[in-house]
Amino acid sequence: MSLLLNDRFLKACLGEAIDQTSLWLMRQAGRYLPEYNATRAKAGSFLGLATNPAYATEVTLQPLDRYPLDAVILFSDILTVPDAMGLGLKFAAGEGPTFEHPLRTEGAVKKLRVANMDELKYVFDAVSQIRKALIQDGKQRVPLIGFSGSPWTLACYMIDGSSADEFRHAKTMMFSRPDLMQHILDVNAQSVAAYLTEQVKAGAQALMIFDTWGGMLPDGWYQTISLAAIQKVIALLPREHEGRKIPVIMFTKGGAIWLNDMAQVGADVIALDWTMSLSRARKQLLGINKPLALQGNLDPLILFSEPKQIAAQANLILEDLASAPTLKAGLHPLDGHVFNLGHGISQFTPPESVTALAEAVINRSRLLRAKS
Amino acid sequence: MSLLLNDRFLKACLGEAIDQTSLWLMRQAGRYLPEYNATRAKAGSFLGLATNPAYATEVTLQPLDRYPLDAVILFSDILTVPDAMGLGLKFAAGEGPTFEHPLRTEGAVKKLRVANMDELKYVFDAVSQIRKALIQDGKQRVPLIGFSGSPWTLACYMIDGSSADEFRHAKTMMFSRPDLMQHILDVNAQSVAAYLTEQVKAGAQALMIFDTWGGMLPDGWYQTISLAAIQKVIALLPREHEGRKIPVIMFTKGGAIWLNDMAQVGADVIALDWTMSLSRARKQLLGINKPLALQGNLDPLILFSEPKQIAAQANLILEDLASAPTLKAGLHPLDGHVFNLGHGISQFTPPESVTALAEAVINRSRLLRAKS
Repeated sequence: MSLLLNDRFLKACLGEAIDQTSLWLMRQAGRYLPEYNATRAKAGSFLGLATNPAYATEVTLQPLDRYPLDAVILFSDILTVPDAMGLGLKFAAGEGPTFEHPLRTEGAVKKLRVANMDELKYVFDAVSQIRKALIQDGKQRVPLIGFSGSPWTLACYMIDGSSADEFRHAKTMMFSRPDLMQHILDVNAQSVAAYLTEQVKAGAQALMIFDTWGGMLPDGWYQTISLAAIQKVIALLPREHEGRKIPVIMFTKGGAIWLNDMAQVGADVIALDWTMSLSRARKQLLGINKPLALQGNLDPLILFSEPKQIAAQANLILEDLASAPTLKAGLHPLDGHVFNLGHGISQFTPPESVTALAEAVINRSRLLRAKS
Repeated sequence: MSLLLNDRFLKACLGEAIDQTSLWLMRQAGRYLPEYNATRAKAGSFLGLATNPAYATEVTLQPLDRYPLDAVILFSDILTVPDAMGLGLKFAAGEGPTFEHPLRTEGAVKKLRVANMDELKYVFDAVSQIRKALIQDGKQRVPLIGFSGSPWTLACYMIDGSSADEFRHAKTMMFSRPDLMQHILDVNAQSVAAYLTEQVKAGAQALMIFDTWGGMLPDGWYQTISLAAIQKVIALLPREHEGRKIPVIMFTKGGAIWLNDMAQVGADVIALDWTMSLSRARKQLLGINKPLALQGNLDPLILFSEPKQIAAQANLILEDLASAPTLKAGLHPLDGHVFNLGHGISQFTPPESVTALAEAVINRSRLLRAKS
């Protein structure tokens, strides 16, 4: 177990008191950073970058060198898992990811097997190397977050091949062949659980499950299709490693309407997009006796405004939560919150905007904590 | 005032008792129907179709000749209004609508003026002709619904030019130049109110406001940006014409999380997508003493399943609502509901699926009403 120089993020996830609000950003290592683009150019392609542990390590740490962030997240892609199941991931120029062998027939679905973790060794190697690279004077600068797509979100890409058609084929299979969908979800849940477990063994200190497409499911189906599969995954995860708890963050984009259901899934942290205020979410969770931490929820497009406007919007989020009840006795209302965006940062974001955001989160969250 | 052969839809909107659940489908006149494609081929293009009252009348009535529907909706496009403001609507082959002159500069925004209703005469002519075409043996077969996009949804297209970039420019203007956004919303609200008013004068018997992109706004912004502008529109609308009430339906796709706010806007009917069950919505609205009718909320992708599965899902929606409290004393729980999809019907839908849906809605809603 390495000593952490900065454990704000882990404490926020676990609902412990901290001095200032912890901050990281979804997709913080990405195309809005010139240094990322330089490494990607060296790697030749996105997949060249993601499959090379040295490059993946390099880009994972880049945002930490630029901004006062409280965590880094493994640089990878959610589609590495179906790729390891033999679906043939490729990135066509300017078109986003596609699979060469999408699951469109009963035969293809029935042949699907749990991903072979040996084929994902490059990911676990990246995790180990990132952990090493985070050491400074014998101590670890910030914790490393591992992640995976949710079983349903992976199924969306696996069946449709790409996001071009709003996952019409995935939803159609769900409605018309629930038996096939259940098989895919079961295989995916086992694959995701194995994948995240290996990430923890390699050094991931928190885990995030991205349910990017759960929000497009009908009420009722969300619970039995996406959430049930996430619950299976979480039940299989190691919750402690190297003597530390491994918090699990779950995020269904567009899922705030199902907050009470999400609270039952076994996660430590619920990540929210910007459609529900944190104070409303806090009150609702306390109302059902589920004092879970929250992550979120700034609209990433606010980062296209002037620094003053960015600060004003970040402050609003903090002030709203500061007005809510505390998670537990003895905490400040701002404890139990990981500041983040409600979706990945846009590739067009001016890098200076993140500086403004970080300053605002640090300053205002310290001020609000000092006041009360 | 023409005598209505079938007034189920209007009664459902106004929360009056009916014999079976009323049904119509968003985008019911559209590319999934071969007869629509035949008329469109005659017209030469989508705009050729939408701007020709005779063709618009023809396609508006097509679904009524095929299915036992309880209303027709004017065939048109929400972007006719910004087109009449001089933005230059065009439909590039296979690319959806774009504007030649999107609002990207302060100068362009400040020059924006309320749409000239004379330029939309072809729409009002279509409304009158549709009303005439609905007459059978001196009586009107079903009511005619008029519609418009919401001020915010129109602003999204007007600023971004198209939906290609997830309306990044519209949201950026909202966050960074709220003064310019407010000007656009004010102009749009006046334009939409004038447009809907003219539709009523021409013969529209109910109105629907499509807030297709309100659901992507952050909490707080949704209320002050999209909902406030919708409220302005509704306040300006005629609520009675030809001796009949003109119900207003409002629909924010992805907006169920803000149901209580939507209930305050002055609409008679709240349309929901499939992310919130109708029983939950009914209970929530009764809880804040707003006994409003509901419209929705089948996922249109269910129409890609077998007839038996389509019927099963339609039945689930009806049975769920039948288990909820009644809107008012003396009603059946199924009263005050307009069955519809939660989004427009897909162009790839097999036409036979709509037959199966209509049969299920009629049969099960009569059965459930007879039982209790």
